[in-house]
Amino acid sequence: MKNLKILSGAALATLALSVAPAMAEEKYALAVDTAYIFNTLLFLIGGFLVMWMAAGFAMLEAGLVRTKNVSMQCLKNIALYSIAGIMFWVTGYNLMYTGVDGGFFGSFGTYSFDAVGGDALDTGYSTASDWFFQMVFCATTASIVSGTMAERVKLWAFLIFTVLLTGVLYPITGSWEWGAGWLDEMGFSDFAGSTLVHSVGGWAALVGAIILGPRSGKYGKAGQVNVMPGSSMPLATLGTFILWLGWFGFNGASQLAMGTIGDVTDISRIFANTNMAAAAGVVTTILLTQILYKKVDVTMALNGALAGLVAITAEPLTPSVPQAMFIGAVGGALVVFAVPLLDKLKIDDVVGAIPVHLLAGIWGTLVVPLSNSDVSFLPQLVGVVSIGAFISISSALIWLAIKATIGLRVGEEEEALGLDKVEIGVEAYPEFGQGSQRL
Amino acid sequence: MKNLKILSGAALATLALSVAPAMAEEKYALAVDTAYIFNTLLFLIGGFLVMWMAAGFAMLEAGLVRTKNVSMQCLKNIALYSIAGIMFWVTGYNLMYTGVDGGFFGSFGTYSFDAVGGDALDTGYSTASDWFFQMVFCATTASIVSGTMAERVKLWAFLIFTVLLTGVLYPITGSWEWGAGWLDEMGFSDFAGSTLVHSVGGWAALVGAIILGPRSGKYGKAGQVNVMPGSSMPLATLGTFILWLGWFGFNGASQLAMGTIGDVTDISRIFANTNMAAAAGVVTTILLTQILYKKVDVTMALNGALAGLVAITAEPLTPSVPQAMFIGAVGGALVVFAVPLLDKLKIDDVVGAIPVHLLAGIWGTLVVPLSNSDVSFLPQLVGVVSIGAFISISSALIWLAIKATIGLRVGEEEEALGLDKVEIGVEAYPEFGQGSQRL
Amino acid sequence: MKNLKILSGAALATLALSVAPAMAEEKYALAVDTAYIFNTLLFLIGGFLVMWMAAGFAMLEAGLVRTKNVSMQCLKNIALYSIAGIMFWVTGYNLMYTGVDGGFFGSFGTYSFDAVGGDALDTGYSTASDWFFQMVFCATTASIVSGTMAERVKLWAFLIFTVLLTGVLYPITGSWEWGAGWLDEMGFSDFAGSTLVHSVGGWAALVGAIILGPRSGKYGKAGQVNVMPGSSMPLATLGTFILWLGWFGFNGASQLAMGTIGDVTDISRIFANTNMAAAAGVVTTILLTQILYKKVDVTMALNGALAGLVAITAEPLTPSVPQAMFIGAVGGALVVFAVPLLDKLKIDDVVGAIPVHLLAGIWGTLVVPLSNSDVSFLPQLVGVVSIGAFISISSALIWLAIKATIGLRVGEEEEALGLDKVEIGVEAYPEFGQGSQRL
Repeated sequence: MKNLKILSGAALATLALSVAPAMAEEKYALAVDTAYIFNTLLFLIGGFLVMWMAAGFAMLEAGLVRTKNVSMQCLKNIALYSIAGIMFWVTGYNLMYTGVDGGFFGSFGTYSFDAVGGDALDTGYSTASDWFFQMVFCATTASIVSGTMAERVKLWAFLIFTVLLTGVLYPITGSWEWGAGWLDEMGFSDFAGSTLVHSVGGWAALVGAIILGPRSGKYGKAGQVNVMPGSSMPLATLGTFILWLGWFGFNGASQLAMGTIGDVTDISRIFANTNMAAAAGVVTTILLTQILYKKVDVTMALNGALAGLVAITAEPLTPSVPQAMFIGAVGGALVVFAVPLLDKLKIDDVVGAIPVHLLAGIWGTLVVPLSNSDVSFLPQLVGVVSIGAFISISSALIWLAIKATIGLRVGEEEEALGLDKVEIGVEAYPEFGQGSQRL
Repeated sequence: MKNLKILSGAALATLALSVAPAMAEEKYALAVDTAYIFNTLLFLIGGFLVMWMAAGFAMLEAGLVRTKNVSMQCLKNIALYSIAGIMFWVTGYNLMYTGVDGGFFGSFGTYSFDAVGGDALDTGYSTASDWFFQMVFCATTASIVSGTMAERVKLWAFLIFTVLLTGVLYPITGSWEWGAGWLDEMGFSDFAGSTLVHSVGGWAALVGAIILGPRSGKYGKAGQVNVMPGSSMPLATLGTFILWLGWFGFNGASQLAMGTIGDVTDISRIFANTNMAAAAGVVTTILLTQILYKKVDVTMALNGALAGLVAITAEPLTPSVPQAMFIGAVGGALVVFAVPLLDKLKIDDVVGAIPVHLLAGIWGTLVVPLSNSDVSFLPQLVGVVSIGAFISISSALIWLAIKATIGLRVGEEEEALGLDKVEIGVEAYPEFGQGSQRL
Repeated sequence: MKNLKILSGAALATLALSVAPAMAEEKYALAVDTAYIFNTLLFLIGGFLVMWMAAGFAMLEAGLVRTKNVSMQCLKNIALYSIAGIMFWVTGYNLMYTGVDGGFFGSFGTYSFDAVGGDALDTGYSTASDWFFQMVFCATTASIVSGTMAERVKLWAFLIFTVLLTGVLYPITGSWEWGAGWLDEMGFSDFAGSTLVHSVGGWAALVGAIILGPRSGKYGKAGQVNVMPGSSMPLATLGTFILWLGWFGFNGASQLAMGTIGDVTDISRIFANTNMAAAAGVVTTILLTQILYKKVDVTMALNGALAGLVAITAEPLTPSVPQAMFIGAVGGALVVFAVPLLDKLKIDDVVGAIPVHLLAGIWGTLVVPLSNSDVSFLPQLVGVVSIGAFISISSALIWLAIKATIGLRVGEEEEALGLDKVEIGVEAYPEFGQGSQRL
């Protein structure tokens, strides 16, 4: 069997044509190969789609911050994706997946891919494709934090937090469920990461935003909330469409196998349900903002799509279409009501990531039993609370340690000038906007 | 056989290795699975590529409207994609595909996907993947209307029309051909939708533009045409590249099967021909605008690519490369000559969607017999005329009904201020452009 | 066997279920089909990902040139992709791949795809899919030239060069290695084109930039270098993410087969290594610019990602993860040190393409023996030098011939006004930036 692996496609064809029918074992080998190839291909396609979400976050955030901080947001997003890629190899993968065995974390150490031309028939897919797919999820988590804390956090403070989030925190809570840890044994279920990815990023962002404080001038002394509109709606829209596209990989490839009819049929259901939830999120926010404000708010509609996507992520397979639309619609409604609520609490979430990723993530996780009878409410609640507690506390400790050492926040004058001039040295739009006014 | 569907990839491998050679039937089962998986995968990949075209239209239109209407265009595009997704489930799919049987429309009612872990061996692909792929085509049709009527149509007027277009009109004419209705029986052929998608959107846009009237100030009293340049050429360029990319899914996956050598070879031909037609459209518009205007017009070149793509869509498989280039080149030339013609008729098509989608769509449909000897000219003409008549008349009735009730067009003052301020409340670029001039 | 090819997926299923177990040969036929479909699918997916890189270059360059030249950069990029598509069919493919046989170029003439429904069992993949995949590589080469020479080269001078580069120069040096020419026989190895694609574009750009001269005002009389910041960092960032995404197709599909376990496992390794090299390139440039300039330069970080990607392209399969990171990190460092060096030499490379594509390409090619023991240093050096010499000399002759005839560079006044007004007639951002200042 093993010798098959060194044959090229053409050689394999020759073999298959020439081999005697009596050599029946070879046929099965080919069938096994096919399932292995399909499974691996699913990880590769799903992986590049989720990798593309890094660009989506970059564009969404570049569009929702003010001109003077756009270059910084671009830099942070390409930096965090790079850091996540390195850290998830250095410690992340093994901490999350190797030897967890009902426990609280896996083993330490870097990860090894299949050898060149290698196989991994026992796993049914290439280990490097699995690593790639899991890595881009880890990067997504870090992307969420970037938006909330924009426009006043120091670059290096954020990058150091990213190293720890992607190399330690995310893998630990990830191991509890996807690494077959204690939450998995208890019956917790989170198909593609409403909690494990989105809420984890959301908790880290929430705690960070509280410790960091709001942008200067955001909340007036008289209690008023000052709108600080984003610099580019088309970039924010582009980012949302990129994320929506990437989400087909995020949820679809979380089926983890495509080598059977049942698996590919499930992936198809997941594609359709994922789209339905997002669509319902958009329509809900459009209707609600029209009713509440007599105008449709485009940033709410964009976040409505994302909230619908986050909400369906905990269980995109089992819902019927009406259930998927309901789950997404509630996600969208959460955005409309939570954004002003956060402002009342003076928690300054620049891009709306807390409603979208944290609240819709909790909602999606808790509502899984509605469509999936194998899952019950209590383990879902335990998962949400335990992961929330772990990430909140550990994030708070890290943010506070950074604050006490290199400092978390740029100075007031630097914040007024914009991070692009102070920390990056390259303005986003030097010839117009804030830039051109100086000329 | 059926029990195979519940096995995961790894379990399947184990089964395949352990099963006795005598159990020969299992082998065929695996082969059937493989074709089913390939077919479904084609719909999923094609589907996400065409879904991505929604972002392409959003960027193209955001780049071609003026700054003061960019947020509105972004909102409309994410809204119409969402509405299409919902309506094509509520009524669209069954109206278009179920029980048409040589007639004029299918059945009413929502669509049901495969059950979890389900199969559909008789169809050869997952039904949810098919739904997803067909849905994104429906959304494309609605995108076309959005651009032509930009900068003066009321948001809710457009959204209501979108509900009817995606839930009723598009599925009805679609059923005539792809649902095996009367046009299909007559011998009409439209491989991926030059007429069924692009002309349908084009007719709805043309009729809408006539009823709506041109933008205020577009046509001067002395007969002059005032140029209203788009706000961002790079966004328009990005949109065009996105559409070009998505078109490989649009045309390629319209082969509807990838489980045999012949099918995947045809998909490859389609990829190459699609690219050739678009390339010829670009080169033609560049040469023509250089000759006619002594300058190359970048918006013409972008629309030339799209016109080439629309033209090849009716038959991307059978043309030889020179034929594909000829079809695309004529599409590009149509843009160069039709844009000023429309202006003479005082039909204000903001993004050039009528030449690109309607005229190139008609051209592409009528030229099918050139390369495909199974198709004759008369049914093609009947298809173009009948679908044009149905969509024009039904669209006109809807636009007029909207005009008579909630109104079709914003007030003059609101148009001058821009839709972003009046209907959206979020400016696209608050810190520069029109926005910054107010500061 | 051959009759299988005309069966649709559903018909194939029926056949497979009904055929008697004794007809064992059919089973092997299916297995051969499967490998053929996987191989072809790899070219199609890889092809559309690399096609997408054309959009990446367009956005990167649109973001890195000044506002007054953005439309021109958009036009050039869609034009060059179109020209490459046509020329690689007219002469390119056969010149590069047909009958090279240890020599210096292939045969002349247009390329023929598989017939409709055709097969090519002897090759193991569809010829049209192979053509499509190779064509987008050719287009990438032309994209590289576009950025370096921006803001002062005449449109038609650039387009004429593109015709010759994509139809003649690139295919000739390509034939030496990938067409099984003399360099391949000597043992030169360039997996996905660090030299054959990136350095070829880089040499053509370098020679072009020297002959063309720097932008007016770039280098002051007192020896100072004037910064001419790019117009949009988010577009440059978007372009970089697009290129990164496309690179998974660029390197991954250069495995050229996906029909065996070994092949798909190798593709997975390639994905992971490609990502690692890019990530290391980013982190290296961030650290170096922080240390050297006390600020992090976002354009350096973007180019660091690209340099890492170019460097790993010569051998993305065999490196271990630390080796991949080392290769990418050195690529990133090359950018940081070479950008100021080029300025000292008064070679004005607008987007940094020479360090990214030429220097990192040379580095990546020379370092192959580090991880691949089948490759030795001398043939690598011969390949780098011989291809560099051929492309430099032939490019220089073409650029000089253009200069002597239609002229290479726009007039000083036209350069000051910007190419958009002079040659394109459509400004990129008419309502803000340079545009709005004129209002």
